[in-house]
Amino acid sequence: MYESVIQDLIEELGQLPGIGPKSAQRIAFHLLDADPEDVKRLAATLVDAKTKVHFCVVCGNVTVETECRICADPRRDPSVLCVVEESKDVIAIERTREFRGRYHVLGGAISPLAGIGPDQLRIKELLGRLQDGTVTEVIIATDPNLEGEATATYLMRMLMPLGLRVTKLASGLPVGGDLEYADEVTLGRAFEHRTSVGQ
Amino acid sequence: MYESVIQDLIEELGQLPGIGPKSAQRIAFHLLDADPEDVKRLAATLVDAKTKVHFCVVCGNVTVETECRICADPRRDPSVLCVVEESKDVIAIERTREFRGRYHVLGGAISPLAGIGPDQLRIKELLGRLQDGTVTEVIIATDPNLEGEATATYLMRMLMPLGLRVTKLASGLPVGGDLEYADEVTLGRAFEHRTSVGQ
Repeated sequence: MYESVIQDLIEELGQLPGIGPKSAQRIAFHLLDADPEDVKRLAATLVDAKTKVHFCVVCGNVTVETECRICADPRRDPSVLCVVEESKDVIAIERTREFRGRYHVLGGAISPLAGIGPDQLRIKELLGRLQDGTVTEVIIATDPNLEGEATATYLMRMLMPLGLRVTKLASGLPVGGDLEYADEVTLGRAFEHRTSVGQ
Repeated sequence: MYESVIQDLIEELGQLPGIGPKSAQRIAFHLLDADPEDVKRLAATLVDAKTKVHFCVVCGNVTVETECRICADPRRDPSVLCVVEESKDVIAIERTREFRGRYHVLGGAISPLAGIGPDQLRIKELLGRLQDGTVTEVIIATDPNLEGEATATYLMRMLMPLGLRVTKLASGLPVGGDLEYADEVTLGRAFEHRTSVGQ
């Protein structure tokens, strides 16, 4: 239907996450209409980011250095390690300003359907970081979905025998939401983990 | 919060239509995780499409030649001209297989808020195509929104005195939709333009 070069562009864009065929078409025509310099800059930024960014040798977070900013920061508490699935989870937690420890990025979650088992994740590296006894608490902060829970269970079983404090992020009602719109599982968890108030 | 090269990538992606900050972040991390060859190919496709694609000298549709496929096709009826806002509207109409005439792409719609008046659209070129009397019907197929309707009204006033048949796409209930979910204006139009059935 389209000229093949436009079709190629739409197909390439359609492979990005969250971009369906209609969005891909919309973005393609936007780019065909845009200033050539803008398109060249976008293309250069893509290649530049991909070339410069790699994974922190310590925690697996994205960085342009050998170690990421957090691992290189001596003010971060080395005794608490927060285990997350992805680099973007690090950013989400950093935004809360609640956590001053360090991170370990697994690079995904256990998902038999996608063929991802523990060996595909940075779990060996995690165990390596726990060897010298500096870390006393591991906070498991995987996604609250099926794959994330499976990964959390796997990690808990593995970490419990090591004599560390192992904790997991609280489940419950999202702040700012309506109780009536919470799903049953979330509401059930909120009951199960209800906290004492007052005396 | 991010390394600046990642921040640049997220900002570039966030300027694409329909991509908010969260989607931009998701796509950026997807690309950082992807095969370097895939990212290079995406970047090359962007630049390639932008370099090769330009506008048909006759109708304003996108093409890699001087004239687009439809203008170059002798089997298309030269007596009917369908006026649309964008190249993607041409594709949408071609998909219906209802129309065998030719197109004229305006390159947008009249929008005083966006500073787009008749002079920014390919209206002079449209008048040029009507000079030799080949075209006997102009179908106005602008978007059924405020800007599209304003453009249609402008075109109708301009074309009426030329003694052509000027038509406009029908307004009414979308096929496959529910009557109760139709907005008042659409439902009102559907009443106004109701068609006779039976005798």
